[in-house]
Amino acid sequence: MGNCFFSQDKNTNVRVSLPAVCFVWEIAMVVLFGIFVRYNEEADAHWGEYKKTHNITTDMENDFYYRYPSFQDVHVMIFVGFGFLMTFLKRYSFGAVGFTFLIAAFGLQWALLMQGWFHSLDYSTGKILIGIENLINADFCCGGVLIAFGALLGKVSPVQMMVVSLFGVTLYAVEEYIILNLLHCRDAGGSMVIHTFGGYYGLAISWILYRPNLNKSKHLNGSVYHSDLFAMIGTLFLWLFWPSFNSAIANHGDGQHRAAINTYISLAASVVTAVAISSMTEKRGRLDMVHIQNATLAGGVAMGASAEFMISPYGSLIVGFFCGIISTFGFKFVSPFLEKHLKLQDTCGIHNLHAVPGMLGGFISAIVAAMASESVYKLTLPVYSAGTQGGAIVGLILKLPIWGDPADDNCFDDE
Amino acid sequence: MGNCFFSQDKNTNVRVSLPAVCFVWEIAMVVLFGIFVRYNEEADAHWGEYKKTHNITTDMENDFYYRYPSFQDVHVMIFVGFGFLMTFLKRYSFGAVGFTFLIAAFGLQWALLMQGWFHSLDYSTGKILIGIENLINADFCCGGVLIAFGALLGKVSPVQMMVVSLFGVTLYAVEEYIILNLLHCRDAGGSMVIHTFGGYYGLAISWILYRPNLNKSKHLNGSVYHSDLFAMIGTLFLWLFWPSFNSAIANHGDGQHRAAINTYISLAASVVTAVAISSMTEKRGRLDMVHIQNATLAGGVAMGASAEFMISPYGSLIVGFFCGIISTFGFKFVSPFLEKHLKLQDTCGIHNLHAVPGMLGGFISAIVAAMASESVYKLTLPVYSAGTQGGAIVGLILKLPIWGDPADDNCFDDE
Amino acid sequence: MGNCFFSQDKNTNVRVSLPAVCFVWEIAMVVLFGIFVRYNEEADAHWGEYKKTHNITTDMENDFYYRYPSFQDVHVMIFVGFGFLMTFLKRYSFGAVGFTFLIAAFGLQWALLMQGWFHSLDYSTGKILIGIENLINADFCCGGVLIAFGALLGKVSPVQMMVVSLFGVTLYAVEEYIILNLLHCRDAGGSMVIHTFGGYYGLAISWILYRPNLNKSKHLNGSVYHSDLFAMIGTLFLWLFWPSFNSAIANHGDGQHRAAINTYISLAASVVTAVAISSMTEKRGRLDMVHIQNATLAGGVAMGASAEFMISPYGSLIVGFFCGIISTFGFKFVSPFLEKHLKLQDTCGIHNLHAVPGMLGGFISAIVAAMASESVYKLTLPVYSAGTQGGAIVGLILKLPIWGDPADDNCFDDE
Repeated sequence: MGNCFFSQDKNTNVRVSLPAVCFVWEIAMVVLFGIFVRYNEEADAHWGEYKKTHNITTDMENDFYYRYPSFQDVHVMIFVGFGFLMTFLKRYSFGAVGFTFLIAAFGLQWALLMQGWFHSLDYSTGKILIGIENLINADFCCGGVLIAFGALLGKVSPVQMMVVSLFGVTLYAVEEYIILNLLHCRDAGGSMVIHTFGGYYGLAISWILYRPNLNKSKHLNGSVYHSDLFAMIGTLFLWLFWPSFNSAIANHGDGQHRAAINTYISLAASVVTAVAISSMTEKRGRLDMVHIQNATLAGGVAMGASAEFMISPYGSLIVGFFCGIISTFGFKFVSPFLEKHLKLQDTCGIHNLHAVPGMLGGFISAIVAAMASESVYKLTLPVYSAGTQGGAIVGLILKLPIWGDPADDNCFDDE
Repeated sequence: MGNCFFSQDKNTNVRVSLPAVCFVWEIAMVVLFGIFVRYNEEADAHWGEYKKTHNITTDMENDFYYRYPSFQDVHVMIFVGFGFLMTFLKRYSFGAVGFTFLIAAFGLQWALLMQGWFHSLDYSTGKILIGIENLINADFCCGGVLIAFGALLGKVSPVQMMVVSLFGVTLYAVEEYIILNLLHCRDAGGSMVIHTFGGYYGLAISWILYRPNLNKSKHLNGSVYHSDLFAMIGTLFLWLFWPSFNSAIANHGDGQHRAAINTYISLAASVVTAVAISSMTEKRGRLDMVHIQNATLAGGVAMGASAEFMISPYGSLIVGFFCGIISTFGFKFVSPFLEKHLKLQDTCGIHNLHAVPGMLGGFISAIVAAMASESVYKLTLPVYSAGTQGGAIVGLILKLPIWGDPADDNCFDDE
Repeated sequence: MGNCFFSQDKNTNVRVSLPAVCFVWEIAMVVLFGIFVRYNEEADAHWGEYKKTHNITTDMENDFYYRYPSFQDVHVMIFVGFGFLMTFLKRYSFGAVGFTFLIAAFGLQWALLMQGWFHSLDYSTGKILIGIENLINADFCCGGVLIAFGALLGKVSPVQMMVVSLFGVTLYAVEEYIILNLLHCRDAGGSMVIHTFGGYYGLAISWILYRPNLNKSKHLNGSVYHSDLFAMIGTLFLWLFWPSFNSAIANHGDGQHRAAINTYISLAASVVTAVAISSMTEKRGRLDMVHIQNATLAGGVAMGASAEFMISPYGSLIVGFFCGIISTFGFKFVSPFLEKHLKLQDTCGIHNLHAVPGMLGGFISAIVAAMASESVYKLTLPVYSAGTQGGAIVGLILKLPIWGDPADDNCFDDE
C-alpha cells in the first residue's frame, strides 16, 4: 500500500522504516503509559469507596453511563466514517481505510498522553488519570489528524503519515489547551479545535508537498461506481453519528440533549441545500456524488462550537442551510481555483468540508456568546498558527527523502 | 441521478425544479421553525430549575439517557438500513442511497412540525416543544415514506419523491394522530402506523403510475454480485437494530426491556423460516438473496404493535415463525401475481415486507389486547384510507408532466 | 448458496434437508420456549411492584439501561462483524454473510435455552427467566460457533453448519458452566470460553473433514479488490465495538468502565504491531490485507478474560503489543505449516486470531489473578476437551453423506 513498482527516482520501500517507526513509537508508548497512565476514580476499583465518600447512591452516576453510547458512535465515525469516506478513489480504497486505521490507532495512544498531561494530570502523584472522557477526546484528536490526511490522500507513504500523526496530535493538544483552558472558550464539538485546525494543518502540509507533475497519475484520481458507494458508507455514518460527536463531551443533562437536537437539525438542512446547489450547477440537474458525500456534512462541522448553546432549533436550521450552500460552492468552484492558482492539491476537499465550515462555526459561536470581535480574533489565532505554521514545518520534515513517498505517476494507487 | 440521456418524449431535466423545490421548502422550514419550534424542558437551559421543582435528583432522569442509544440505532436504520437495502439494483445504487438521504433529511424537518402540532404543542405559548422523543418520531415518519419509496424505486425523479415525501409525512401525522390519540391504541413499533400505512401509500402511488412498457428497462431491474452484498449491509443493520426500533418510544423500565426482547426473538425465528421456505421453493435448495434480504425482517415488522405487551417469549417466536413464511411466499408468488393481474409494479416488494406483516402485527396486537373485532375494523380504517386514498391522489399529482420523471427505457438507471 | 452444479459424486441438493432441519428445529424451539421461557423480573410487567419491594426509586436501575447499548454493539459484531469479516473470498461473500445470519439466528434461540437451564432457571417454577444479559450471552455463544465457521468457510453446506451450530451451542453452554460456575473463574470477554473454545472446536471439525484435493478449487480461495474492502467493514466493526464486547457483562460501575478502557488500549497497540510485522515480512514493506483484517483484532481477544481486572493501562498496552506480533506471525508462518504438516485447512486462520490469542488471554488472566499453575491447568481442560473432542465427534457426524456438502472443485463458490 502506498507504494509503487516502477519508480527509479524514488525509494518507496518502507520495509525497514515502517516497522522501525511502529516499534520504536509503540515501545515508547508502553514506557510512557507505564510511568504516567492510571485509571481515574470512576474506572478504578476504588469506585465503591468513592461512591460512599461522595454520597453517590447508584452506579448509574458513573460518567461511563452518561458518555459511553456517544463514545462508541464517535469511535465509529473516526474509523468507519473517515476511513470509508476516503475510499472513493478507484485504486486507493485500501490505503484510505488501512492508513486511517493505523494513524488513528497510533494517534489515540499519543493523544491519551498529550491531552492527559494538559487536562487529566493528578499533580499530587504526577499520574494521568483516564476515564471515558479521555477516550472520547483522544478520538477527537485523531479526527483532526484524519482531516489532514484527507488533503494528502494518495500522495504520501504510511511512514510520512505516522510523522504527520505524531506532530498533529502534539500540535492539537497545545492549541486545544490554549483555547479551552487559557482562553476559556467552549468548543464541545470542535468546530475550531478539530475541524479548522485539522483543515489548515493538512492544507499547509499539502502546500509544501506540492507536486507539479501530479497529473501523471490523473487517471487514478477518480472514482468508480462501487468505490463511490463505499464512500457513502463513510458519509452516512459520519452524518448519522454527528449528534453524538457534538454532544459527547457536553454537560450532563440538558447540555447533551440540546447539542444532539441542534446537530440533528442543522445536518438535515445542509443535506437539502447541498442537493439544491449540486443539482443547480450540474448538467441536466444530475447530482454530483462528491457533493452528496461531503457537503451534506457541513452542517455538523459548523454546529460544533455552538451545539451546546441555546441557539434554538431555527438557529440550527439556518446554520445548516447556509453551510450546505457554502460547502457545495467550495467543492464546485473554490477547490479548482486553489489548485490552479495557489498550488494547493487537496484530494478530499477538506478546505470546503472542514476548514471553512469549522471557521464559520467558530464565528457563529462567538456571535451567540456575544463575544467582542477582538476576543474572536484572539481565539482564532492559536488555531491558525498551530495549523498553518505547524503544518508548514511538518511539510518540510516530510520533504526529507527518507520516508518512502510515492512517485508522481504512482500516486492514488495502493499496489 | 434519476435522469436519462435519450428521451425525446419526456423532459427529465430537474436542474430548475429540484433546486427550486429544495429552496422553497427549506426556507419554509426556517420560517416555520422560527415561529413554532423550541426546546422542551429537558433540552432547555431551564432543566436545572425543572429538576428542582420536580424533585429530580440526577441528570440521568433526563429522557435523553433513556432514549438516545435507541434513537441512534433508529437513525442508522432509516439512513443506512433503508438506504442500502435498496442498493440491490445494479445501476441504481446511488439513486437508492442518495434519494433516501434527501427524502429523509427533508422529511424529518416537516415531520417535526406536523407531529409537533399534533402531539407536542404547548397551548399556552403556541410553541412546539421538542426533545429526543420527537427526533425518534420524526425518524419513524420518514421510515413510512421510505417504505413507499421502495415500491417506486427507479421509476420516479427526485422531485417526485420530494412531493411523495411532503404529502406522505402529512398523511402519516394525521393517521398517527387518529390511531394513537383519538382511538387510544398503542403501536410503539408502528406495525400499522408506519409499515401498513407506508406500504399502502407506496402501492397506491405505484398503481396510479403504472408503466405498461416498463419491460423496456427490464435488463436493469436486477442485481449484480456486489450490489447484492451492499444490500445485505442494509438488511443486517435493519435486522440488528429492530429491537431498538420497537423499544425506542416504549415505556421506561420493563416496557423498553420487554419490547427489545420480544423483537429480538421474533426476528431470529423469521430468519430460520424464511430460509426454509426460500430453499424449498428454489432449484436444488439454493437460497434466493431477495428472500434473505427482505423476508428475514418480517418478524420485526409484525412485532411492532405488540412488542411492549406481555406476549411472552414463545408468543414472539410464533409471530416470527409465521411471518417469515408468509413474507417469503409473498415474494415468491404474490408479487408476480400482483404485477401481472393487478398492474402493480412494486420494485422492492414492500407488499410482502411491510404492508402484509404490518397488518398481521395489527391483528396480533388486537388479539393480545383482546379487542372486539368491531374496534379492530375501526382501527384499520384510518391507516387504509390515508394510505390508499392519499396515495392515489398523490399519484395523480405526480402524473403532471412537470416533475422530470424518467422514460420507460431509462428506469432503474441513475446516470 | 453452498451448492454446485457439476458434482456427479456428491448429492449437494439441500432442497429437502435444509427446510426439514429448519422447520423441525424451529418448531422444537417454539415448544421448548412455550414450556420454559418467561421474562425475568426486570422485563416483566411486575417490574413496578418489584421496584417497590426492592426500594428502587428509578427505572434507570433496570439492568436494561446498564447493558442495552453494549448489547447492540455486540449484536453488530456478531452479524455484521463476523459476517463481513468472512466476505473476503471472491465468490463466497454471500455464503459468508448469509450463513452467518442463519447460524446465529438459529444459534441464539438454542443458546437462550441451553444457557438458561444452566444459569437462569427459577427452581421454584422450573422456568427460565430471561432479560438483557441473556440476550448478550446468547450472542456470545453464537460468536463461538461463528469462530468455528471461520475454519470451515466455503467447505461445508448450510445443513452441516446447522449441525455444527446445534452441537456447538450445546458444548459451549457446558464448558461455560464448568468454567464460570464450577471452577468460579471470571471470563467476562470470553478469551477462553468463547475464543479458545470456538477456535479448537472449528479446527477439530476441519481436521476431521480434511480434503486432500482441496487445491482443485484453489483459484476460488482468494480475494478480489472489493471483496477485501467488504471484509474491512467486518474488521472495523469488530475492532470498534470490542470494548463493548468485553464490558457488556462486566460488573456495573467501575467494572464496565475499566473493561472498556483496557480493551480500547489493547486493540490500539495490536494494530500498530500487526502493521509493523506485516510490513516487515512482505516485499517492499507492503501491507498484507489478511493481517490488517485479522491480526489487528488479537488485542481484543486476549483482553477478554482480564479486561475487568486492575491490569492497568500499560498492562493492556503490553498485551496488545505482543498479541499483534504473535497473531501476524501466525498468519504468515503457522497457518501454512499447519496445513502442510498437520492437514489442517483453516480458511480464515482462526488458529491465529482466536485459538492462540484466547489461550494467551486465559494465561494473562491467571497471572493477574495470581492463580496456581495447577488451577490454570484445571481451567483450560474443559475448554480443550469440549473444543477438540466435541469438535472431532461433530466432524465425524458431518462425514455422513446426507448433509449435501460441496465437492472439492466447488468449494469457496456460492453459486
